[in-house]
Amino acid sequence: MSRLEQQLALLIELDQLKSVLRRTRVKSAEGRLENSAEHSWHVALMAILMEEHANEPVDVARVVKMLLLHDIVEIDAGDTFVYDAVASAEQEEKELAAAKRLFGMLPEEQGRVLFELWLEFEAAESADAKFAKALDRLIPMLLNYHNDGQSWQEHGVTREQALTINKRIGLGSEVLWEKAQQVIAEATEKGWLKA
Amino acid sequence: MSRLEQQLALLIELDQLKSVLRRTRVKSAEGRLENSAEHSWHVALMAILMEEHANEPVDVARVVKMLLLHDIVEIDAGDTFVYDAVASAEQEEKELAAAKRLFGMLPEEQGRVLFELWLEFEAAESADAKFAKALDRLIPMLLNYHNDGQSWQEHGVTREQALTINKRIGLGSEVLWEKAQQVIAEATEKGWLKA
Repeated sequence: MSRLEQQLALLIELDQLKSVLRRTRVKSAEGRLENSAEHSWHVALMAILMEEHANEPVDVARVVKMLLLHDIVEIDAGDTFVYDAVASAEQEEKELAAAKRLFGMLPEEQGRVLFELWLEFEAAESADAKFAKALDRLIPMLLNYHNDGQSWQEHGVTREQALTINKRIGLGSEVLWEKAQQVIAEATEKGWLKA
Repeated sequence: MSRLEQQLALLIELDQLKSVLRRTRVKSAEGRLENSAEHSWHVALMAILMEEHANEPVDVARVVKMLLLHDIVEIDAGDTFVYDAVASAEQEEKELAAAKRLFGMLPEEQGRVLFELWLEFEAAESADAKFAKALDRLIPMLLNYHNDGQSWQEHGVTREQALTINKRIGLGSEVLWEKAQQVIAEATEKGWLKA
């Protein structure tokens, strides 16, 4: 297969991410669940809008690339709800296998570079990855808040859980973590998060 | 309003792009129509995968940014089918007004920079914009082909129309225009495009 045909094969494969559903609902439509493809678009654009709020200087082009790629493993491994404590270990293995399969469809060097970027995001250690992770955690909270706390209410999420799970936002952006705490406080007051 | 609050207001507004429907269908789901948010994700990732096929060297980070932003005006103006000859002039005005409104929600300098990037994409004159436009035209053809030509068949598109409308792909990438012609030839042979 030519390089182009390999790239096209992955491109078509990626269409499937549009069918992986998350726990957040799209506000304006008939209340349907958001899928991971449109989420990835939204959070990548968020990086462009919010770059100035990163704790450390980031390479926003790398952050955007990470965010466009970060969920593609869900094509094989499915989405995990952030408040799901059980899934983790087995899920990690599934996602790693998925990353190897998907990036393995590309010309070798190209696939390796993107696989390493995906690993960097997962490790959440570099400045770029910490900021990307912060955005990925904050955006569902924002959407959820603007949707009367639907996902928190549907899954009985507590204020304590929201604070614990999301405090890592601060590793990427203190400013956004402050905003997140404000959202959590208001959502608790409205009864959308259990006190 | 603080800069952050302005940026957050636009971010939430952008959620609406997930409810703007296109003419292409998502393959793996129940045949539902694709929306402009997930399309924008897919085509931005396409830029990352296909950079090497641009006619001229491009700044892929700018191309990605353009593609993430290119359709947000549809929140106000709606999507236009590429084979729709009528819409154009009035549609252009609506889109320009939408761009002004949406980018106008941001802090002034930030909004101006992104508005100019959107204008650059629309003008389709720079190397980055020509490549971005080429990807935006090719991806629905590829998805459509892998979906038994559904959108062409639903709208009675002819081989001639497909060739005329899409030949501008060659301005951004000769390699991808060659691929597009191959797709059109095969789709015509299969009867998905009218001969």
